Amino acid sequence: MSVVITDPPRVSRETAEAFTPYGVATVHEAQGRTGLLAAYMRPIYPGAKIAGSAVTVSIPPADNWMLHVAVEQCQAGDVLVVAPTSPCDTGYFGELLACSLAARGVLGLVIEAGCRDVAALTEMRFPVWSKAVSAQGTVKETLGSVNVPIVCAGQLVHPGDLVIADDDGIVVVPRAAAGDVLRKSEARERKEAQTRARLQAGELGLDIYGMRKKLAEKGLAYRRTIAES
Amino acid sequence: MSVVITDPPRVSRETAEAFTPYGVATVHEAQGRTGLLAAYMRPIYPGAKIAGSAVTVSIPPADNWMLHVAVEQCQAGDVLVVAPTSPCDTGYFGELLACSLAARGVLGLVIEAGCRDVAALTEMRFPVWSKAVSAQGTVKETLGSVNVPIVCAGQLVHPGDLVIADDDGIVVVPRAAAGDVLRKSEARERKEAQTRARLQAGELGLDIYGMRKKLAEKGLAYRRTIAES
Amino acid sequence: MSVVITDPPRVSRETAEAFTPYGVATVHEAQGRTGLLAAYMRPIYPGAKIAGSAVTVSIPPADNWMLHVAVEQCQAGDVLVVAPTSPCDTGYFGELLACSLAARGVLGLVIEAGCRDVAALTEMRFPVWSKAVSAQGTVKETLGSVNVPIVCAGQLVHPGDLVIADDDGIVVVPRAAAGDVLRKSEARERKEAQTRARLQAGELGLDIYGMRKKLAEKGLAYRRTIAES
Amino acid sequence: MSVVITDPPRVSRETAEAFTPYGVATVHEAQGRTGLLAAYMRPIYPGAKIAGSAVTVSIPPADNWMLHVAVEQCQAGDVLVVAPTSPCDTGYFGELLACSLAARGVLGLVIEAGCRDVAALTEMRFPVWSKAVSAQGTVKETLGSVNVPIVCAGQLVHPGDLVIADDDGIVVVPRAAAGDVLRKSEARERKEAQTRARLQAGELGLDIYGMRKKLAEKGLAYRRTIAES
Amino acid sequence: MSVVITDPPRVSRETAEAFTPYGVATVHEAQGRTGLLAAYMRPIYPGAKIAGSAVTVSIPPADNWMLHVAVEQCQAGDVLVVAPTSPCDTGYFGELLACSLAARGVLGLVIEAGCRDVAALTEMRFPVWSKAVSAQGTVKETLGSVNVPIVCAGQLVHPGDLVIADDDGIVVVPRAAAGDVLRKSEARERKEAQTRARLQAGELGLDIYGMRKKLAEKGLAYRRTIAES
Amino acid sequence: MSVVITDPPRVSRETAEAFTPYGVATVHEAQGRTGLLAAYMRPIYPGAKIAGSAVTVSIPPADNWMLHVAVEQCQAGDVLVVAPTSPCDTGYFGELLACSLAARGVLGLVIEAGCRDVAALTEMRFPVWSKAVSAQGTVKETLGSVNVPIVCAGQLVHPGDLVIADDDGIVVVPRAAAGDVLRKSEARERKEAQTRARLQAGELGLDIYGMRKKLAEKGLAYRRTIAES
Repeated sequence: MSVVITDPPRVSRETAEAFTPYGVATVHEAQGRTGLLAAYMRPIYPGAKIAGSAVTVSIPPADNWMLHVAVEQCQAGDVLVVAPTSPCDTGYFGELLACSLAARGVLGLVIEAGCRDVAALTEMRFPVWSKAVSAQGTVKETLGSVNVPIVCAGQLVHPGDLVIADDDGIVVVPRAAAGDVLRKSEARERKEAQTRARLQAGELGLDIYGMRKKLAEKGLAYRRTIAES
Repeated sequence: MSVVITDPPRVSRETAEAFTPYGVATVHEAQGRTGLLAAYMRPIYPGAKIAGSAVTVSIPPADNWMLHVAVEQCQAGDVLVVAPTSPCDTGYFGELLACSLAARGVLGLVIEAGCRDVAALTEMRFPVWSKAVSAQGTVKETLGSVNVPIVCAGQLVHPGDLVIADDDGIVVVPRAAAGDVLRKSEARERKEAQTRARLQAGELGLDIYGMRKKLAEKGLAYRRTIAES
Repeated sequence: MSVVITDPPRVSRETAEAFTPYGVATVHEAQGRTGLLAAYMRPIYPGAKIAGSAVTVSIPPADNWMLHVAVEQCQAGDVLVVAPTSPCDTGYFGELLACSLAARGVLGLVIEAGCRDVAALTEMRFPVWSKAVSAQGTVKETLGSVNVPIVCAGQLVHPGDLVIADDDGIVVVPRAAAGDVLRKSEARERKEAQTRARLQAGELGLDIYGMRKKLAEKGLAYRRTIAES
Repeated sequence: MSVVITDPPRVSRETAEAFTPYGVATVHEAQGRTGLLAAYMRPIYPGAKIAGSAVTVSIPPADNWMLHVAVEQCQAGDVLVVAPTSPCDTGYFGELLACSLAARGVLGLVIEAGCRDVAALTEMRFPVWSKAVSAQGTVKETLGSVNVPIVCAGQLVHPGDLVIADDDGIVVVPRAAAGDVLRKSEARERKEAQTRARLQAGELGLDIYGMRKKLAEKGLAYRRTIAES
Repeated sequence: MSVVITDPPRVSRETAEAFTPYGVATVHEAQGRTGLLAAYMRPIYPGAKIAGSAVTVSIPPADNWMLHVAVEQCQAGDVLVVAPTSPCDTGYFGELLACSLAARGVLGLVIEAGCRDVAALTEMRFPVWSKAVSAQGTVKETLGSVNVPIVCAGQLVHPGDLVIADDDGIVVVPRAAAGDVLRKSEARERKEAQTRARLQAGELGLDIYGMRKKLAEKGLAYRRTIAES
Repeated sequence: MSVVITDPPRVSRETAEAFTPYGVATVHEAQGRTGLLAAYMRPIYPGAKIAGSAVTVSIPPADNWMLHVAVEQCQAGDVLVVAPTSPCDTGYFGELLACSLAARGVLGLVIEAGCRDVAALTEMRFPVWSKAVSAQGTVKETLGSVNVPIVCAGQLVHPGDLVIADDDGIVVVPRAAAGDVLRKSEARERKEAQTRARLQAGELGLDIYGMRKKLAEKGLAYRRTIAES
C-alpha cells in the first residue's frame, strides 16, 4: 500500500543545529557505534556538512514520481532520505528537484541510488550523498510511500530521525535518542580536544590510554631484528 | 582483422559546439533516454565538459600500441573513445599521449580502462573519463583497430558519432541524429528554465506537472499519523 | 605470534626525498612495472605526494589497537603501511592518530581498509591512501604485528621499503633497489621530457618511437572507408 | 549495550511449515513485493528450502562469540539470522556450530558474512545462505546481541519473524503478517497453477492477461522490417 | 520509440544445430576472439548448452512487460536475449514465462538482469544465463522494443544473430558470419583433437607449438636456483 | 627480467598427502589464521580437494604464453599457482593445458584470473580455483617468470610451498612450516572430533568452551522481553 504521512514527529531544529560542531564519526561513536550508513554512500562534492530531520521515501526502482510527492512534505531543516525497493543506480534526482527542495529550506539529500546534474548541484551548494552519479532518467508510473520507516544503505531510518552527513558518510540518530547522543557527542569532543593537544605535543596514545600493560599481558613481544620467516 | 579507417565521416564542429550549453543529462533525455555510458565511467577531475566527434579505438587488454596509431587519425574537435576487447583497468594513457592529443586539438579521452598521470592531466586540463585510475603500464605487442564501431561502457559508438561528457558521465549521439537532438535539447532546456524559475519561487512540481489527479487515481493515500506496522 | 620489530633498516631520507620529482607511474615503469598496489587504493584528497620508508602493520579486521603500537615505531620521513589480516573497510584511522603521526614527522598513511575524519585530515594536509572512507569504529582487543613483511593491496611490503604515493596510486620499491630505481627514474624522466617537447610540437609517437614498420609487419591495414560489417 | 532476549514471540511451527509448498518468489509477491534480502545472499548448495522463526544475532565484524550464545536460544524450527555491525566476509560459521544447531532442530542459517566447511555442511545437509564462502577465522572478544531487531542484507528482521529461503534467496515475513501472507501465497499459487497450464498449452500471456489493448494505447508499434537506425 | 519487429531474418536451425559440438570458447576463438558477453553472465545450473537465433528485447529497468510481448515473437530454436536500458538485477523472469517459451520451442534465455524460480527452471531444464538470481518482482508499466539491435553484457546483438551459451558463458555470432564461423570452429576443433591426443601422451606444448626458439629470442632465462630477491 | 627456476625445493609428496584428511579451514586455523587466499577465488565445481607443492607463475595480463613454459616445470603432485601482473579475468586456461598437466600428474590449478572449458574440466575432474570463468582468449607475446615468489589473491606464495584447496578456498603453507602445521592440524582435528561428538549430543559450546563467566564479566545481559527501542 502506498501512503504519505503528512505530519510525522520531527527532531527539533534546535537539537539538529546543536550537532553542527560534531562530525559523523564522533556522533557514530557517541551512540555506541550504531547508525552508520554503508560506506558506498558518497558525497557529490567535498566539504558539505548537514544535520536535520529525516523525510523518508520508499521508491520503486528507476521511478522518481514519489520524489515530487515528497517535496511537498518537506520543511526547512529537513533532510530527504530515499531508498529504492530494489537496488538501482538510476539518476532519480537533479537540479530541478534541488531547486524545489532548496526553496523549502531542505538541507540536502541522502539517496541509495543515483543522482545527476552534479555540476549544477555543486554550484548551488545543494549537497547530495548517493550511491552513484548517473544521468540515466527515470519514469513516473508507480507509487511508493513517504514518511514510512525505510532501510537505507543498511540502516533503519524512521521519519523524523536525525540525519547527519559529512565527508565521512551518514549517520542516523533515532529521534528519541538525539538529546542523549548530543550530550555524549559534546563529552566525546571535549575529551578528544584534550587528547588531540597531548598527541600534537608528542605524547603517545600508548601512554595516554594506558595500553602498555594490557598489550604485554596479551603477549606482545618487542624485538630489535626481524626474525627468520 | 586489424584496420585503421582514415577518413570516417564526422559530426561537424559547429554542431558539436552548439551542444556546449547542454549537459549530459539534458542531451540523454532529449534523445529519448538512450546513449548513456555506464556510471562507472568517471571524470579524473570535476568541472570538465566536452562535446566532439568520436575517434574510436578497439584495443587489446593491457596493450596501448593502438593509441599511438589513433593519435594520427585525430583532428581538432575530436574525442578519443577507447574500449578494450576484454575488461582491463591497466593505465593505458598518461601525460605524453595527452600532450600529443592536445597538440592536435583533441578535446579529451573516454576510456573503459585505466589512465594515469592524473595530477599532470589535471594541471594541463586535459579531461579524461575512465573506469579506473591506475599507474600500471601496458605493452605494445598486439594490434587493434581505429575508427570501427565499438561497444564502450555498454554503448555502441560509431566513429564520427557525437560524444558529450561532463561531471554526470558520457552520452553518445549518433551522427545522423545530432541536429535533431540539438533542437530537442534546446527545447528541453528552455522548458526547464521556466520550470526552474517556478520551483525556485516555491511552486510545487505536483502542481506544475499536474500530478495530483493521476496520483489519486493510482490510489495514493495521505494520512496524518503513522500506521501501526 | 605478535611481534614489534623496533629497529628495522630504513631507506635513507636522502634517497626517499630524491624521488620527489618522480611520479608513481614513472617509478613503477623504472623498476620494470612491478610494485604497484591495487587501483582500489585511492587518496582522500587530490594533489598529495609522498615518498618515505615503510613502517608496516599487520592488523586484525576491525581492530586498530596495533596502530597505537605502531605510532611509537615511527620516525620522521616514515610512511605507515597497514593491511588487515582479512578484508575490512572499517574506519581504523582518523584525526587523532594523524595528529600523533604528524607530531613525529610521518609523511602519510597507506591502509588497505577504511579511514575517517577526512575533512579534518584534508584541512591538516595529512595524506591517506585507503580502500574506503568509513566512519565505522574499531575495537582494541586483538594483537597484530609491526614491521613484519605484509601483503598490502596485492603487493609485498617489507619494513624499510620505499613507498611512493600520489594521485595515481602507490608503488613500493624494495629498499635495496631504491638507488638503482632512482637512477632509472631520473633517466626515464629525462627521456620523457624530450619526448614531451617533441609531442607538444606536433610530432607523432608513431615516428618518434619508430613504430610504423613493425605495425605494417604485424599486418595493420589502412583504409579510407568503413568496411561492411 | 549487549543483550540476549530469551523468550521472544515466535511464528508458530504450524504456520511456518504451511509455507513449505511456496517459494521465496511467490511469498515475496504475496506480501506486496516486500521483505526480500539482497541478491548477494546465496545458498552454499542448490536445492535447499526452509521456513522457520528467526533467531536474530547482531555481531561484531570478524568475531563469532555471540553465535555460541545464540545457539542456546534456538529451538526446533528456528532459523538463525546473523548480521555483522560492519561489512565483513569472514568465516563465522562452520561444521561444529552446524552440529550444535542441528542437534537442536534448527533449520538453517542466514548470515550476511562468510561461512566455511561447506563440503561438510553440504554432506550433512545443513543449509546456509551467506554473502561469502571464506575459511578465514574469527575471534571471540566482543559482545553483540541476540533476539534484537537487525538489518540483514537490506531488510529489517525482528526475532520471531518468519524467514523463508530457497535457491532464489531469502524473504522475511513479519510475524503478525504470516497468516495473511500464507493465504495470499496459497491464492497466488492456485492462480499460477491455472496460468501455468494455459501457458504450457501454448496460450499467450498477452491474451491470458489481456495486455494487448493497453500496449496499443501506450503506443506499441508492430512492423515487419527493421527500420534504418 | 517502442517497436516490435515481427519478421526479422534468422540464422537457420540447421546452421545453429551444427554448432552443437562446439563450445563457446571454441566458437569465440574461431571468429577471432570477438562476440563474448561479459563474464558476470552465469548459467543458473551447470551443464546446459544451447545454440539458436536471437530474439532481442530492450526493456526498462524493473519492468518485464515486454517479455510477454516478446514471447509471441519467438519460434522453435530461438534464444531470447534481454538487456535493460539501465543496470538492474530485478527478477524479470521465472517459471511461468519459461513454460510459455518452452511451449514454443525456445531454447533458453540470456538476460543481463535477474531471474527467479531457479529450482523450477532447473527441474524443467530451461536454461538461463543471467547477471543475478533475484526473486524481486517487476512492474508492467513501460514499453520497450523487440527485435531491435541491443547491447547485452557488452556485446552488440542483432535479432537473428546466432547465440551460443554453455558453462563458459555466451558468444554471439553475426548472422551473416555463422557459416564461416562454423567452418572455422570445425577446423579448430579438428586441430585441437590432434593436439589433445599429443598432450595427453605427454608431449609438451612448447614442442608442439614450436615455442622454444621464440622464447629464447625474447630473452627467457632458465636457472637452477632462485636468485636473491 | 624473465626467468624460469628449474629446480626449486618442494614440499615432499608424503607430507602433502598427509594433509588429505584436513580441510582448508582446519589448516588455516592450525597455522595461526594465516595463508588464506582471497574469498573471490572459487572452485569451478564442488567437491574437489587437493594438497601439493606449488609451481608458481607470474604472468602478464591476457597473455598465457608462460603457462606453456610452466607445464614443463611441473611434476606429479604439483599444484600450478598463477597470478597476473595486473588484474585480469581473461580465460588463460582450458582443456588442452589441463590435458598436458594431467599427463604429468599435476593435481590442479589456482589462478587469480579466468579459466574456460569448465564443462570439459569438470568431466575430466581437473580442479581449478579461479577468480572468474571466462572464454575470452589470450595472446602469446610477452614473457613472465616461473618459480619465483608471487602474490596470488593477497597471499605470498613461494615455489615449493604447500598449497591446499577445497570448497572453502585455498591456503598456502610455507614449505618449512609444513611439518609443524601438519601436526597442529592433526591435533586440531582430533580435538574437533571430540567437540563435534559432544555438540551432536546436545551439549552447548557455552559450556564446552567455558564461556559463560567471561561473557558475564563483559556485561552480557539476559532478559525475557524485548526492551523498548
